[in-house]
Amino acid sequence: MMPFNNGLPGNEPAEGRRPDPIDRQPLNEYISGVGDLVTGEITRLFPPHWEVPAKLAEAMSYSLLAGGKRLRPLLVIAACEALGGSREAALPVAVAIEMVHTYSLIHDDLPAMDDDDYRRGRLTNHKVYGEAAAILAGDALLTHAFYSIVQSSRRYSVPAEDVLSIVEDLAEMAGPRGMVGGQAADMEGEQGLTDLESLRYIHLHKTGDLIVFSLLAGGRIGGASEAQLEALRRFGVSIGLAFQVQDDILDLVGDESKLGKKTGSDVRQQKVTYPYFIGLEASRREVERLTEEAKSAVQQGAFADGSRLLEIADYLMSRDH
Amino acid sequence: MMPFNNGLPGNEPAEGRRPDPIDRQPLNEYISGVGDLVTGEITRLFPPHWEVPAKLAEAMSYSLLAGGKRLRPLLVIAACEALGGSREAALPVAVAIEMVHTYSLIHDDLPAMDDDDYRRGRLTNHKVYGEAAAILAGDALLTHAFYSIVQSSRRYSVPAEDVLSIVEDLAEMAGPRGMVGGQAADMEGEQGLTDLESLRYIHLHKTGDLIVFSLLAGGRIGGASEAQLEALRRFGVSIGLAFQVQDDILDLVGDESKLGKKTGSDVRQQKVTYPYFIGLEASRREVERLTEEAKSAVQQGAFADGSRLLEIADYLMSRDH
Repeated sequence: MMPFNNGLPGNEPAEGRRPDPIDRQPLNEYISGVGDLVTGEITRLFPPHWEVPAKLAEAMSYSLLAGGKRLRPLLVIAACEALGGSREAALPVAVAIEMVHTYSLIHDDLPAMDDDDYRRGRLTNHKVYGEAAAILAGDALLTHAFYSIVQSSRRYSVPAEDVLSIVEDLAEMAGPRGMVGGQAADMEGEQGLTDLESLRYIHLHKTGDLIVFSLLAGGRIGGASEAQLEALRRFGVSIGLAFQVQDDILDLVGDESKLGKKTGSDVRQQKVTYPYFIGLEASRREVERLTEEAKSAVQQGAFADGSRLLEIADYLMSRDH
Repeated sequence: MMPFNNGLPGNEPAEGRRPDPIDRQPLNEYISGVGDLVTGEITRLFPPHWEVPAKLAEAMSYSLLAGGKRLRPLLVIAACEALGGSREAALPVAVAIEMVHTYSLIHDDLPAMDDDDYRRGRLTNHKVYGEAAAILAGDALLTHAFYSIVQSSRRYSVPAEDVLSIVEDLAEMAGPRGMVGGQAADMEGEQGLTDLESLRYIHLHKTGDLIVFSLLAGGRIGGASEAQLEALRRFGVSIGLAFQVQDDILDLVGDESKLGKKTGSDVRQQKVTYPYFIGLEASRREVERLTEEAKSAVQQGAFADGSRLLEIADYLMSRDH
């Protein structure tokens, strides 16, 4: 097998053209590579001898390692790499956003909230560890996420100013004006909603804000300009909404064996969805329209290599679980 | 009435000697001044037109404005001023720590945790807004605290490096190795503890860590040296433990009308306390010993003016509610 560069003249990559990793690695391998990296880092962060009460540490790990898609870490790393930034420098933030996402699932599943016994085919956190431990595991994951973010400065020399902006973005987008606000609106809505505008608010904040955060944070670590951050924000808003509309569609017509859960739960729980308001076909067209909007934002961002982001937008649109 | 400086020679303060505010303001006025400042800032931060679902905003404000002692903000500001730092620059962090403290009370009071209906003579958050809203209000307050901290850099030019250290400290001391760890150990303990060492762990983390954080954060904003931060840490560990032992004592022998709650609840709930292990008299001596330890740490810190910290240590020891 010929090495990539054998040292002979003429074998260096042409000036200004780096070997494109996308030529070599299909998206599904890229995604599973990022997933493994994140899972490895989570395992490293929570060693058996961690100085934390045992049940708390266990409850945190249980849900963090419950086999999610690692979509948000993927977006952090893809945004950072689209700018030519280093995957390693983005890893602490990638892990942090997975902690925030996991905390939100643990709290959402609680009896006082959605009261779910299963998630991804496994018992939910409070069914295994009890409600008190589940509340505390969520609290601990949210808090520890901010610790992990700071480590991108401590371990990888990301400038303090940029890390502070990442902290500010997360506090904004996961907080009362962001994800928690979306969840609160969702809870209020279940007691007698609503219209498409309210549903859009819920989707934009409950799911969308963390997706936007992931892209902005990856962008900041990769050294994005203001215009590139704006492109990432628009990309995120569009794929975030597309993702959620697709979720609504899959809940209606998806394959239960692929989803790992029963379809029709939104209907049974009388949750309003995009198909409820505009019908199935219009919802599908909306996913396509949002995906095109997302891809056009990337193209306008003039990234060093935006192709992975484009692929991810298509992948999200066509996913079946 | 003569103005402080009438412009005539000889009326300026002597070179290098600033008028000492402590000469003019007794501790109780200092404490209520800080309390009013913090309450005013909280009110400003949560205006009626805040873009947050109404019930969530209300639930957050309800507990934030439930009339706490504002002890942690007091420590932030006193530490900052002990170093000659500005009260205004410390205010965003002072408000942040009150948000974190308030979130921890809301979650602790939940049915799955301590199941309390009243706090400070008012209905607890979940009794007014329901469990789901209480969980979310707690989550929102914790998240928004980090937003508030970043504002000390945005609005008062505290260097990003220092603010990042404050974020790191809070994530550490409020997280799984800090306050949440203490609470988790407390919950596990209630199912059949324990020894004095475990109780000490719970006190140090569940209550102590936020007190230490408050002092360190105020110190960082005031520009403390490493040695001064270490003095503040030792001061915090000692008054934090003294505070909690005093709480244990007051639960046993306090005046119910001053406490605003019934005494003896620890005994009824079969909670272990310092008096349970070492008796009432030895607990009182322990509070005195810890207070002396705290004061000696301040004296070794060589602060511009540590007298307010010394007064606070004495005040906490002698408090009756």
